[in-house]
Amino acid sequence: MKKLIVGQSGGPTSVINSSLAGVYYEAKRVGFDKVYGMLNGIEGLLEDKIVDLDKYFKNKDNLELLKRTPSSFLGSCRYKLGSIKDNEKDYKKIFEILDKHKIDSLIYIGGNDSMDTVASLYDYAVANNKSQNFIGVPKTIDNDLPITDHCPGYGSASKYIATTLREIIQDNNVYGSTKPTISVVEIMGRHAGWLTAAASLAKGKDCEGVDAIYLPEYDFDIDEFLARIEKLRETKSSIVIAVSEGLKTKDGKFVCESGVSERKKDAFGHVQLSGCASTLADIVAQKTGLKTRAIEFSTIQRSASHLCSLTDVNEAESLGAAAVEAAHNGKTGVMSIIDGKGNISTYDIHEIANVEKKVPTEWYDNKKKQMKKPFLDYARPLIQGELTPIYKDGLPVHLVRK
Amino acid sequence: MKKLIVGQSGGPTSVINSSLAGVYYEAKRVGFDKVYGMLNGIEGLLEDKIVDLDKYFKNKDNLELLKRTPSSFLGSCRYKLGSIKDNEKDYKKIFEILDKHKIDSLIYIGGNDSMDTVASLYDYAVANNKSQNFIGVPKTIDNDLPITDHCPGYGSASKYIATTLREIIQDNNVYGSTKPTISVVEIMGRHAGWLTAAASLAKGKDCEGVDAIYLPEYDFDIDEFLARIEKLRETKSSIVIAVSEGLKTKDGKFVCESGVSERKKDAFGHVQLSGCASTLADIVAQKTGLKTRAIEFSTIQRSASHLCSLTDVNEAESLGAAAVEAAHNGKTGVMSIIDGKGNISTYDIHEIANVEKKVPTEWYDNKKKQMKKPFLDYARPLIQGELTPIYKDGLPVHLVRK
Repeated sequence: MKKLIVGQSGGPTSVINSSLAGVYYEAKRVGFDKVYGMLNGIEGLLEDKIVDLDKYFKNKDNLELLKRTPSSFLGSCRYKLGSIKDNEKDYKKIFEILDKHKIDSLIYIGGNDSMDTVASLYDYAVANNKSQNFIGVPKTIDNDLPITDHCPGYGSASKYIATTLREIIQDNNVYGSTKPTISVVEIMGRHAGWLTAAASLAKGKDCEGVDAIYLPEYDFDIDEFLARIEKLRETKSSIVIAVSEGLKTKDGKFVCESGVSERKKDAFGHVQLSGCASTLADIVAQKTGLKTRAIEFSTIQRSASHLCSLTDVNEAESLGAAAVEAAHNGKTGVMSIIDGKGNISTYDIHEIANVEKKVPTEWYDNKKKQMKKPFLDYARPLIQGELTPIYKDGLPVHLVRK
Repeated sequence: MKKLIVGQSGGPTSVINSSLAGVYYEAKRVGFDKVYGMLNGIEGLLEDKIVDLDKYFKNKDNLELLKRTPSSFLGSCRYKLGSIKDNEKDYKKIFEILDKHKIDSLIYIGGNDSMDTVASLYDYAVANNKSQNFIGVPKTIDNDLPITDHCPGYGSASKYIATTLREIIQDNNVYGSTKPTISVVEIMGRHAGWLTAAASLAKGKDCEGVDAIYLPEYDFDIDEFLARIEKLRETKSSIVIAVSEGLKTKDGKFVCESGVSERKKDAFGHVQLSGCASTLADIVAQKTGLKTRAIEFSTIQRSASHLCSLTDVNEAESLGAAAVEAAHNGKTGVMSIIDGKGNISTYDIHEIANVEKKVPTEWYDNKKKQMKKPFLDYARPLIQGELTPIYKDGLPVHLVRK
């Protein structure tokens, strides 16, 4: 009896369930007798919260729905296993549970922290002569895992951002010079600017694109920002600027936090915080007297499965399947990766965990605040194709655990 | 020579261009020799900014693109003609321009203020023996025009809101009890709660729906709101609440403004304002200690043409065409309207302009903060069907004026 367990971890994406679909059907194909899912990742595993995935996926229609379902079907967690030395109890518990269920392979779909979990479990297994295989599957809209060319989730989030920005740019331009408007759009990615960079994809023959892109890899300078807007105003009545949620000033403070001397209190006397875009939009409004707007894509950008990239869906599925294949072949301590041509392989997880990949400086024009061609050449293939939702009564249908 | 001019006014919608498409092809069909467009509505007309629409729409492929293009193709304005008595200069100017171009019919696609413009132009024409016809076409995501059963733009915005809320609810639930999350989602509609009410459409077999809906037609009570969340917390770890941007406390102040004794200053010393959802999310975070999130759909909800309702598109087109038909038959001072069965006719514009239709009290359960069945029966048909975008290189293509 070969048995496998799979978990999902960290922030969801539009295609994390496509990786789960890939894991399931490949495990069935190569002959695993049982395919379990852990609920809420490693945190659920520690409590022995396990389901037999046949319950949900034996029906093939459900696998099609699964691929169109946003968020993590199995639930997620933000639980980070501590070091083996400091936290042996957790490790012992996990292996007890794996042994109890006779599970020989564990697959974990996640980002940086999750790959650290996979590496630690592998290390514990080696040190304690445990026979289980531990394989990671990359997943993050932040696209910040190293070694792999890109991460599933990033393409779909980019497609959502570029599509929505095209719509926002059309909308923003509607009053022309009769009512000039400046929109500041906030995009996820606290440390790496990959997703904010995807704003550059909006530009085309039918769209002038965003007027500037501010990545978190660079110090943010409010004077430069305001001067740029003053300059843009000379020729444009509609301005749209993309900013990373993680912008920091030179002193290392987040734009939305730094130097706050006095905080807004709401109607009920409580202190309020607001985001990077809303901070900047307010400043611009006060400086220019023009109408400004702050737009935050918030969690929608990672969950808009109605607009996912088919390329991303297919790759997510294949990377899930590749992890199973690796486990089936006795590999362990690796993550499945993809190169720029779509070739899939595996790589030592220790080289991946806890390393954050930033946007290459040579792909960004820090003077013009725009992405350069190599970035566009890199990102454009990732947003190709659509996976049409299955609509019922006017709305996309999802698969949910019951 | 029969000549017609059409304009678009007020906030854009996903289908305001479908009405424009309907106006254009129907005008051609019934034999108007010229179909002009005014740029930026009545404000552009006052400056004689006029284009011959053959330039853009003779190519039928462009009409298909037009229907898939968000925002107002001709540009919009927020210009309100004053009373005839106080502002005769504007009226004289407009009729001079109409006479100069020998335009006999003016069609204006817009919401409440725009219908006031149509009514005033009609009144001026009657008082001054002018022969032109003036017809309105309803358009507003707010759905607050009277007489007509519903307004083009509302169905698509509702479809966007319900679809996105389904995704947000999935996302919000991802950590389960490992990390309880409360999201407050802000929806447009300052005075009428139609669009916020559409949040109720998210609920289905595969989605538990939003936990509460707060309409602007009712006084907002922060104690009731917090007590509701405390109650929900007893059984739920994921809570999603829909609020109108226009919520006011009993003393008539907007939630985001009222009682602000001290305002947040940002990093650069400027005062900041924030929205209703962000105000409420902050209060909940401070009261509960839980993770909260404010999500604003912002302009995306009115411009997400990639997700428009086919029913809405078709009706918008038909209502545009019906206005032309009315003008062709010599009618004036009317707006095209639609009933609940899809029957289209016209109605005296004076009964429509400046009247705001609210959500019927009997359609809302103010105790449970949920919409009742009659609302669902009313709104569900409006979100049916999809108009698939035309994708190129991974992104929807739009038609833009050059």
